Amino acid sequence: MQNILQDISIRRKILNYNKFTGKEFTVGQVYLGIDLGGSNMTAALISSAGAILDLEKIETKAQQGPEKVIRRIVCVSKTVMEKAKIETKQLKGIGIGVPGVLDTKQGVVKYSPNLPGWKNIPLRKKLRAAFKKTVIIDNDANVAAFGEKWQGAGKGYEHVVVYTLGTGIGGGIIQNGKISHGSCDGAGELGHTTIITNGPRCGCGNYGCLEALASGTAIAREGRKTIRSHPGSCLAKLVNGSKQPLTTKLIFQAARAGDRVALAIIEQAGTYLGISVANIINLLNPQIVIIGGGVSQGGESLLKYVRAEAKKRALKELYKCTKIVRAKLADRAGVIGAAGIAIQDNP
Amino acid sequence: MQNILQDISIRRKILNYNKFTGKEFTVGQVYLGIDLGGSNMTAALISSAGAILDLEKIETKAQQGPEKVIRRIVCVSKTVMEKAKIETKQLKGIGIGVPGVLDTKQGVVKYSPNLPGWKNIPLRKKLRAAFKKTVIIDNDANVAAFGEKWQGAGKGYEHVVVYTLGTGIGGGIIQNGKISHGSCDGAGELGHTTIITNGPRCGCGNYGCLEALASGTAIAREGRKTIRSHPGSCLAKLVNGSKQPLTTKLIFQAARAGDRVALAIIEQAGTYLGISVANIINLLNPQIVIIGGGVSQGGESLLKYVRAEAKKRALKELYKCTKIVRAKLADRAGVIGAAGIAIQDNP
Repeated sequence: MQNILQDISIRRKILNYNKFTGKEFTVGQVYLGIDLGGSNMTAALISSAGAILDLEKIETKAQQGPEKVIRRIVCVSKTVMEKAKIETKQLKGIGIGVPGVLDTKQGVVKYSPNLPGWKNIPLRKKLRAAFKKTVIIDNDANVAAFGEKWQGAGKGYEHVVVYTLGTGIGGGIIQNGKISHGSCDGAGELGHTTIITNGPRCGCGNYGCLEALASGTAIAREGRKTIRSHPGSCLAKLVNGSKQPLTTKLIFQAARAGDRVALAIIEQAGTYLGISVANIINLLNPQIVIIGGGVSQGGESLLKYVRAEAKKRALKELYKCTKIVRAKLADRAGVIGAAGIAIQDNP
Repeated sequence: MQNILQDISIRRKILNYNKFTGKEFTVGQVYLGIDLGGSNMTAALISSAGAILDLEKIETKAQQGPEKVIRRIVCVSKTVMEKAKIETKQLKGIGIGVPGVLDTKQGVVKYSPNLPGWKNIPLRKKLRAAFKKTVIIDNDANVAAFGEKWQGAGKGYEHVVVYTLGTGIGGGIIQNGKISHGSCDGAGELGHTTIITNGPRCGCGNYGCLEALASGTAIAREGRKTIRSHPGSCLAKLVNGSKQPLTTKLIFQAARAGDRVALAIIEQAGTYLGISVANIINLLNPQIVIIGGGVSQGGESLLKYVRAEAKKRALKELYKCTKIVRAKLADRAGVIGAAGIAIQDNP
């Protein structure tokens, strides 16, 4: 009898609960989505309709090594379940996005530049042992892209390409509704195609990669150059006034205030990104290209240049049927996408 | 009784017949593969194991318009079946590659620069009516790529990218064993990604596309420039001696004879192609990249430069697990691939 009452109470909870919108809704199943980052990790309970029931974020403490980080993943997951009064047995499946090089079929993290000590860690097996549930793991950029496809700007589309512009440039390719992994989970390195053959050196060793031309790091580098060459510009004054290091945020701020040199930096980055987008349109013929990540939050100004350049270079017939838009889910794309891949794997 | 005898005779035929290798083999099923080109069309009977039972080639006579061309497709198909003593009822399915923009799901040829008058032609429906068999249509470049994947250099691989270097540059992308079509059958335009942002104008309207830098047309253009600037070169002498217009074949011939200027032209084209291949490796993580088409027949010299440049630019981990090889099937890739897509659709 108590069990039945408890089940009813949990069911009510699932049926009527949306902390973030305050709206009532019905869900079929609950999934756990985990977004593991080098600095923080987030766990969220997400309905099969894509609503966040509850969410919990803690520090990763990556320097403590894989065993302790995995314990923290289990801990933050249990915390969010307790908060939402959902029991493990109520979970249908678990998805996790990991910043590293994976073997998604084996569920193994091969290595991760952001997670010290992670070398061939069988993460899926360990989480399955902890929760006794189906677990699916994927690269964090793929997972965030899938989140945008499932519940963000790409909702309703089956052929989606997502660029994530941050310190670097990552992304994910979705074709026929599924993440493209390539032959050994290496597909989707959108930041590492050559745009300018003899361009600046990229972190990957190549020259003129998109990442070396249009990432937050590249935009800030151009900003620093510009301040030196245009000490009287609005941008230079903003930076000197704020007494903070130059960020892409300041460059976008100066551009909004009408500063020509700041606008020129954004135009240049947007143009490079537009070349890459045109290439992607001609290669993959997506329905929608989504630009996300911190840099994209600068506003529509960047996108204007991306669209203009892509239009000039892509095949007309293909450009015509491709939308180029900003991402919608911001830092929630990760947990939503993680639940999304778990749902796709085990609907 | 006569029917049974006829069936046994046809069955013997299918079991023991391979005109091209002279070897005996067993086939499960017979498919019809058709390669429709602007100048010629080829129909072949192909076993489910990929062996060509018989093959027939006729002129397309494209200027006569779609109705007559379709009648010629039916005619050449019936001819090859008669030659091989195979009846229509013995066919399991039909596949056809068409040089144009298609709606593969609807089986319609939307338009074709090489087939005058083809505008929204329901080719699949018409061939189905003629043969009373399952018909599948696809773009000729995709079909040829699928042929290489199925029975050529890509045999055994599931993630394959094929470049076809001819007058232009086309290609096909195969992921998880299937042709990538994108959202509206536009994917795989490998010749139309920007390699040099301010490079030569491409036929598509863009500047610096791979096609404008490494196609047969582009290589011959570089050859003509070189002859003017190096009138004493081996290449110039070859061209003047042959009294024929300069072709890529002559350039490869001069290069094999050790002509430095000819080698420099091939190095340049190979380097551009290598940049494109590196981009494809980082975007799609294929197992194998296959270089086909007339230009690739020049030999290994082009591929040497492609590999060297791709190695310099692609992510090390991904380059390591990607083969870069020449195509194997030459002009038979089309019919073999056409049968291949019919088999994949209706095994």
